[in-house]
Amino acid sequence: MYSKELIDLFKGLGINIGDAVRVSGSGDVQEGILMPRADVGDSDVIVIKRKDGYNIGIRFNKESRIERVSPGHPGNFLFPKLDTGTNKSLKPIAMLYTGGTIGSKVDYVSGGVYMLTKPEELLSEVPELQDIANIDISNLMSIASEDMTYVEWQKIAEKAADALNKGANGIVITHGTDTMHYTSAALSFMLKGLNAPVVLTGAQRSSDRGSSDAFMNLICSAYAASRSDIAEVGVCMHSASSDSTDSFIRGTKVRKMHTSRRDAFRPVNNLPICEIDIKGNIRYLSEYKKVSEEKKKVELVSGFEPKVALIKAYPNSDPEVIDYYLGKGYKGIVLEGTGLGHVPSSPSIRELSWISHVKSAVDFGMVVGATSQCIYGRVNESVYRNLRLLHGAGAIYCEDMLPEVAYVKLGFLLGNYGADKAKRMLNANIAGEITERTELDFAME
Amino acid sequence: MYSKELIDLFKGLGINIGDAVRVSGSGDVQEGILMPRADVGDSDVIVIKRKDGYNIGIRFNKESRIERVSPGHPGNFLFPKLDTGTNKSLKPIAMLYTGGTIGSKVDYVSGGVYMLTKPEELLSEVPELQDIANIDISNLMSIASEDMTYVEWQKIAEKAADALNKGANGIVITHGTDTMHYTSAALSFMLKGLNAPVVLTGAQRSSDRGSSDAFMNLICSAYAASRSDIAEVGVCMHSASSDSTDSFIRGTKVRKMHTSRRDAFRPVNNLPICEIDIKGNIRYLSEYKKVSEEKKKVELVSGFEPKVALIKAYPNSDPEVIDYYLGKGYKGIVLEGTGLGHVPSSPSIRELSWISHVKSAVDFGMVVGATSQCIYGRVNESVYRNLRLLHGAGAIYCEDMLPEVAYVKLGFLLGNYGADKAKRMLNANIAGEITERTELDFAME
Repeated sequence: MYSKELIDLFKGLGINIGDAVRVSGSGDVQEGILMPRADVGDSDVIVIKRKDGYNIGIRFNKESRIERVSPGHPGNFLFPKLDTGTNKSLKPIAMLYTGGTIGSKVDYVSGGVYMLTKPEELLSEVPELQDIANIDISNLMSIASEDMTYVEWQKIAEKAADALNKGANGIVITHGTDTMHYTSAALSFMLKGLNAPVVLTGAQRSSDRGSSDAFMNLICSAYAASRSDIAEVGVCMHSASSDSTDSFIRGTKVRKMHTSRRDAFRPVNNLPICEIDIKGNIRYLSEYKKVSEEKKKVELVSGFEPKVALIKAYPNSDPEVIDYYLGKGYKGIVLEGTGLGHVPSSPSIRELSWISHVKSAVDFGMVVGATSQCIYGRVNESVYRNLRLLHGAGAIYCEDMLPEVAYVKLGFLLGNYGADKAKRMLNANIAGEITERTELDFAME
Repeated sequence: MYSKELIDLFKGLGINIGDAVRVSGSGDVQEGILMPRADVGDSDVIVIKRKDGYNIGIRFNKESRIERVSPGHPGNFLFPKLDTGTNKSLKPIAMLYTGGTIGSKVDYVSGGVYMLTKPEELLSEVPELQDIANIDISNLMSIASEDMTYVEWQKIAEKAADALNKGANGIVITHGTDTMHYTSAALSFMLKGLNAPVVLTGAQRSSDRGSSDAFMNLICSAYAASRSDIAEVGVCMHSASSDSTDSFIRGTKVRKMHTSRRDAFRPVNNLPICEIDIKGNIRYLSEYKKVSEEKKKVELVSGFEPKVALIKAYPNSDPEVIDYYLGKGYKGIVLEGTGLGHVPSSPSIRELSWISHVKSAVDFGMVVGATSQCIYGRVNESVYRNLRLLHGAGAIYCEDMLPEVAYVKLGFLLGNYGADKAKRMLNANIAGEITERTELDFAME
């Protein structure tokens, strides 16, 4: 909120939020749209959105002047009350707000980023949404995605299943980007018999930056949830660093591959399911599970065993860390090996061999999966002697599954079905996480 | 070796190794060049190289017949005695053989892969090398690269420094691909004041497969070591899955990004230094350290502290693993965080927060570096609250350094200079491992 003094000043000058204004003082002149203030921060700082799209904060003092350049109009930037529920020709979708950069703004005084407490603030800046779908917004939680745990995955899965079984056509989940691909994998497994699109989206730049990807990602996600026939969980984010299209990527085949680019989310060992542009045009690029006519309920299978570790093997790495996890009562381990799924097996320093430790963990009932830190490609236990050694010790080779996805899957399997079934299902395809060996593989060789 | 019976048969028919032959029997007819047999494997199996480039093994029995189609000639496939040391107009380079797929062949009976005991066998199949450089081959070791430890890094560094200080123009190191990028990072740090090209190369397919990348990689590496003016360690492997060019990528900016593609090695956050084609044409693509006229000795700095761990943080991950390593006397940890370098900081399950564990490790004298599991991009401790928390706990943000490179660098720093200097140098550039923030970064945002 602006201070009472500023609100009185605006009223006296006939200036409203949304008007184009000119602010001068201390030799500097700035023009732009007068923005509403969030509930936090210094209240004598005026925030305006400039023509270049950037919001800036200007401390208003005795030397400052503000004047109206032109009156505001709906559609410039501000839709304080967005109508997203009354157009009965549009399909109903549920939007689950969980936090992350897409739900955050920069405080223009401290420079820090804060989370919105009201997700409606975000939606009010995307008026296009009211012409795409009837959106029912739920404020599920407001956390940074690096703080997500399986408890939050369970909450999101439960709410998504509930909304779908009550008639939503699809789901949009706004989420921090750091661990979005872990959550998308968890939901892919937890929403059994899914018959609707479940779309995770977010932003690499907060929504008040001119370069924010939040708006386009929200719009494309709303199209995916309301107008696609995809019966899968996926991530919908920029296809390129420009604002050309978003990609909808299967939730078990996606990984955040860059710290800051807007097109950080990339499909691994697959094409995206489709690309979506800001007008809702959908271009399908690969096979996917289609929504079936028969209306069926989604089944929530949300058990999760958190005592599963993801461990990387590398030169000089300590194989006794496996014994450490065994001692802590861990039930499963996913190894990120090198190349085709190797771990140190016959090194010159004998105590650095991983084989006997893996064998002993398996003998004690642990489920051990083998993946590759290369990220792209497929593990293969049959090529080299060292691979056969690890396979012989009882490790299960996870085909072309991402290490992170294998980790989430093993926690899901152990949490719901126990170790015997987990062993059988770890390298069997459940939710698109394993791609059959295709001509693409051979072409790569 | 072929069996005495086969050798007698060949002699009787006037057939020599290298001749084009036709082998028939059991309804199958195969034509190709008669190949020499390695010292292992079943000796009544005839190996021929077919027109498609593949070697096949044919068990020779009573129904089998062999006849000569045409006599062999130098240059078809076999140069049993390659002359690589007498052309004084060519520059001298040292080739250090360490093992890996490039030094392995398929046994056509068992289907397994075995290592060559004589690296000359490999070179004898690449006659082009004798016109590129005078090559002095050393058989340093014969191990799969997943079994490399710092002890082997030290041996390779020592031998490379020795050869350079004795006058070699450059070094080619043949190496397994799994951990080639760890070794290239180690050599980048251990060879101080390097004033010559040091080139690691290998193969994704063994050299007796028609699709092998071994020959082109050897040729391009020999050109890089003898005719480039690059005073850096780098990896020279295929630029694309076709045989168009090799890329020479800085040893601290390269990562194996695919389990099996021939162009698996990719530069991260940089362009390759150059591309090299099979005729020795070099096209420079980015800045690099050039060989200086002044002849100076390379200094070997090969200490390494193996008690350094590379640990990934992810949803539900166990922060007590830091205490485990602390208890084992570890001196350093490199964290692979999410996004811009996050670890779980304020999760709903309080015991999953990593902050207090990092702080206690730092208080006990451990050096803790922060990198990103995104692989591409740059960590940044100043954007979000959780990043500032980790930074406040004493973690050192490693800019755009690869996690694997930060791990090798921390072991190098602790092994040679101790903890205080390691803390100061971890995020300072030593060997191209940190790229200054450039316009490329901004364009990506």
